[in-house]
Amino acid sequence: MKSYQNLHKISREIRVLEGVSSILGWDQETHMPPDGAPIRGEQLEVMAGLIHEKKTGKKFLNALSKLIDIDSGKILEKGLTDEQQKAVLLWRRDVRKALALPTEFVEKFAKLSSQSIHAWRFAKKNNSFQHFAPFLEQVVEMNRQQADYLGYQDHPYDALLDLYEPDISTKEVSELFTSLKKSLEKLLKNITAAKQIEDSFLHGKFPPKKQITFVKHLIDTMGYDMAKGRLDFSVHPFSSASHPTDSRITTFIHPTSLMSNIFAVLHEAGHGLYEMGLLPENFGTPLGDFYSMGVHESQSKWWENLIGQSKPYWQHFYPLLQKTFKGRFDDVSLNKFYRAINIVEPSFIRVDADEVTYSLHVILRFELEKDLIEGKLAIRDVPEAWNEKMHKFLGITPQTDAEGCLQDIHWSMGAFGYFPTYVLGNLFASHFFLGFEKAHPDWSKRVAQGELLFIKQWLNENVHQWGRRYTSKELLQNSTNKTFSAKAFSDYLNNKYKEIYKFA
Amino acid sequence: MKSYQNLHKISREIRVLEGVSSILGWDQETHMPPDGAPIRGEQLEVMAGLIHEKKTGKKFLNALSKLIDIDSGKILEKGLTDEQQKAVLLWRRDVRKALALPTEFVEKFAKLSSQSIHAWRFAKKNNSFQHFAPFLEQVVEMNRQQADYLGYQDHPYDALLDLYEPDISTKEVSELFTSLKKSLEKLLKNITAAKQIEDSFLHGKFPPKKQITFVKHLIDTMGYDMAKGRLDFSVHPFSSASHPTDSRITTFIHPTSLMSNIFAVLHEAGHGLYEMGLLPENFGTPLGDFYSMGVHESQSKWWENLIGQSKPYWQHFYPLLQKTFKGRFDDVSLNKFYRAINIVEPSFIRVDADEVTYSLHVILRFELEKDLIEGKLAIRDVPEAWNEKMHKFLGITPQTDAEGCLQDIHWSMGAFGYFPTYVLGNLFASHFFLGFEKAHPDWSKRVAQGELLFIKQWLNENVHQWGRRYTSKELLQNSTNKTFSAKAFSDYLNNKYKEIYKFA
Repeated sequence: MKSYQNLHKISREIRVLEGVSSILGWDQETHMPPDGAPIRGEQLEVMAGLIHEKKTGKKFLNALSKLIDIDSGKILEKGLTDEQQKAVLLWRRDVRKALALPTEFVEKFAKLSSQSIHAWRFAKKNNSFQHFAPFLEQVVEMNRQQADYLGYQDHPYDALLDLYEPDISTKEVSELFTSLKKSLEKLLKNITAAKQIEDSFLHGKFPPKKQITFVKHLIDTMGYDMAKGRLDFSVHPFSSASHPTDSRITTFIHPTSLMSNIFAVLHEAGHGLYEMGLLPENFGTPLGDFYSMGVHESQSKWWENLIGQSKPYWQHFYPLLQKTFKGRFDDVSLNKFYRAINIVEPSFIRVDADEVTYSLHVILRFELEKDLIEGKLAIRDVPEAWNEKMHKFLGITPQTDAEGCLQDIHWSMGAFGYFPTYVLGNLFASHFFLGFEKAHPDWSKRVAQGELLFIKQWLNENVHQWGRRYTSKELLQNSTNKTFSAKAFSDYLNNKYKEIYKFA
Repeated sequence: MKSYQNLHKISREIRVLEGVSSILGWDQETHMPPDGAPIRGEQLEVMAGLIHEKKTGKKFLNALSKLIDIDSGKILEKGLTDEQQKAVLLWRRDVRKALALPTEFVEKFAKLSSQSIHAWRFAKKNNSFQHFAPFLEQVVEMNRQQADYLGYQDHPYDALLDLYEPDISTKEVSELFTSLKKSLEKLLKNITAAKQIEDSFLHGKFPPKKQITFVKHLIDTMGYDMAKGRLDFSVHPFSSASHPTDSRITTFIHPTSLMSNIFAVLHEAGHGLYEMGLLPENFGTPLGDFYSMGVHESQSKWWENLIGQSKPYWQHFYPLLQKTFKGRFDDVSLNKFYRAINIVEPSFIRVDADEVTYSLHVILRFELEKDLIEGKLAIRDVPEAWNEKMHKFLGITPQTDAEGCLQDIHWSMGAFGYFPTYVLGNLFASHFFLGFEKAHPDWSKRVAQGELLFIKQWLNENVHQWGRRYTSKELLQNSTNKTFSAKAFSDYLNNKYKEIYKFA
């Protein structure tokens, strides 16, 4: 037991330092004076180097080796609890991944990312894919190398996906996405053929102060604890947890658009609640960390979409919204409002997309990433391939690469394998919801009465508290007793939008 | 030159980490959610450990040893510039100090401080010196040990003073303070005998928003650069620089008192400007750090007292103040206002004291500290000794220890030798002012016209930019061509208050 405690102590120190970097990142986007940027960059770099050093250092490896044979994975320490055994296996998993990449490679990749982000910013601003292309070429090449270092059985993309979403293979994602795509294309066809929805009343002047008061009330009601978090403002909304007792969120207020701030805050507060729900006693062990980007995204999409865009939610909050923005919604019925906030419309930009088209944006990127890694798609052909797919999936063609293949930062950062987790988040959320509905068949009635804490409670018990104790598939299975598939999400969308767009 | 660059690189990394700790400390007092406190404590502790490790680690020592023989102080590298030689000598000085304290001792002292602060908070709240006494006993004992480890020639207090104010001895401080005390006691007697001043119009309702707008204008005018700083709110005003391009300040707004916020902001902005004025190219070498606590304090007192409580300053800003707080100062002449903001009145609490009595509070503490370290004063006799001195210096006797010897945090933190730097700040500031007046004989005219940037410019050139290149005495000498003494400060006070209190 002493060996375990010793390892936990060393690991907790590293985790504490990771939390320091989070604060630096949060401060950078919220409060840092502009001229502080260059040395803030240095601070983040030095911290990252230190953390990597400690994670792969002798002190950590020696402590871990007392508990497990790092090569074979054989647990050496007797008398560990199940939880502790699981933690030790995860520590081993993480350190093997970290050690698989040569320091030289890591440094070269970091340098490339940094240059590549600059090039991408310029390229996007000047709508010049050509400027970004040589960097993308190198990013793809280094991702292939990364996959080789990390190792994989079937497909190099497996190794990349695993960085963000462990235990789901490229093949599985492909199958999930193929079935989802089919369903979405059909749904979108029905929606496009249906009578379109009026939402002009959601635009106009909405005083920022009132918007802030309103969203603060929303997150308070859902159980986001201001003693453990904050709401600030940044150009792009984000959530940033330093540790379970300091999990902050930000939003961006458009003074002429009402819903973007509301959904951003619900989204980020969903992320924030996940971090707040990790068990403090596990802090510093892998069991105290969130499971994956997909599970994280399931929590944000849960609150943004499944709850925040649901009718019962607005049965409760719409009167308050009407009161807050007096005179703006006098002639707008709840039903009219509900339909307007769920409007579906193909558009070019992923982050602005609605619940139905969003996944198609992501599937497009996944398919291109796979082709790029396989070498099936040449860099120079990316813009054309992008535009073709946009037309095929959404029936629209971007006029510029800035609103096409240059819109996202991910590739410039070197992050191949990240995009799929956005859709996995949707799929996970809807699948978790099956379990939630079974546990709380009267949920919509309670939500319509303004009760929300039982939702957080259910998520705490079924998702948050476990951290990395269970895989996503185990979490999904445990909470629903049903095998995971894309069906829950497809069914949810079909049922919801059939009613909203009034087709059979 | 390569050896020097290598050392600078290693040292800069350490300095970067110190800047990270500053951000953590700033965030803790301004924005951190309350429940984040325990793990924030861990973050600060882990960072402090890391920084100490790096400052005394092999990597740093090896790099330094290439340039200088650490034992003898003989410079080994040929061709260093004067600046570089000075930097190397300071690096050696710092590392010898750090190495002089055994790790065990440092850890024991840190632990004692942490317990002692808790005990002090309780003791102050419950007005129970008895509760704090055993901790103070240990603090004094460990400070004696610390002095022994650090080494000294004449007096153990020299070694402690040197931690905050290098190159000034206890003997010199005693002499400065004795002469100052004499002068202050005489001045105070004259003031007490004179007709007292009316200042009731400075109290009442002053809307916080207007106060904030007003002080933001003040610091903007003096050259505090918001692209490199921020103004936030905290229970106690402070300044916190992460690096020269991120130097933040805070204030506390009393909604019923006007001047405390104004003077706090000028004080902290004075600190902030010093840090902003350190040369970026020296960042990471000792030349890029501030010289001492006393020199730092000279910069805050300069703006708070010498400028901010001067008549020319308010010749310019008083009309704006009147306009900002409409109706509040209609019947108050500039002269009446000027006299009111310079009111002198013996009081118990150091941080609330005026310009004349402030130094006496500090001299009292210095005398007690010296006696404690020498063993002349027993811990149990501290409250009585305190009260006696208060009566002797200021003619008043605290009714409780909470407003007496328990009021300051410094002793509980283990910081013996710190207090004198507050008065040295006053002395330095007034002495620098001699040089400033010589360079700008028309300063008061220019200030009365709202010109302030030439003041910052003079401080940049004569103080800020040098960092640790020159000692305080060299800086003072270089800027004035006069030998440093307490006379400049005494003269300043005597001339100023003779006019304000109208005595001969």
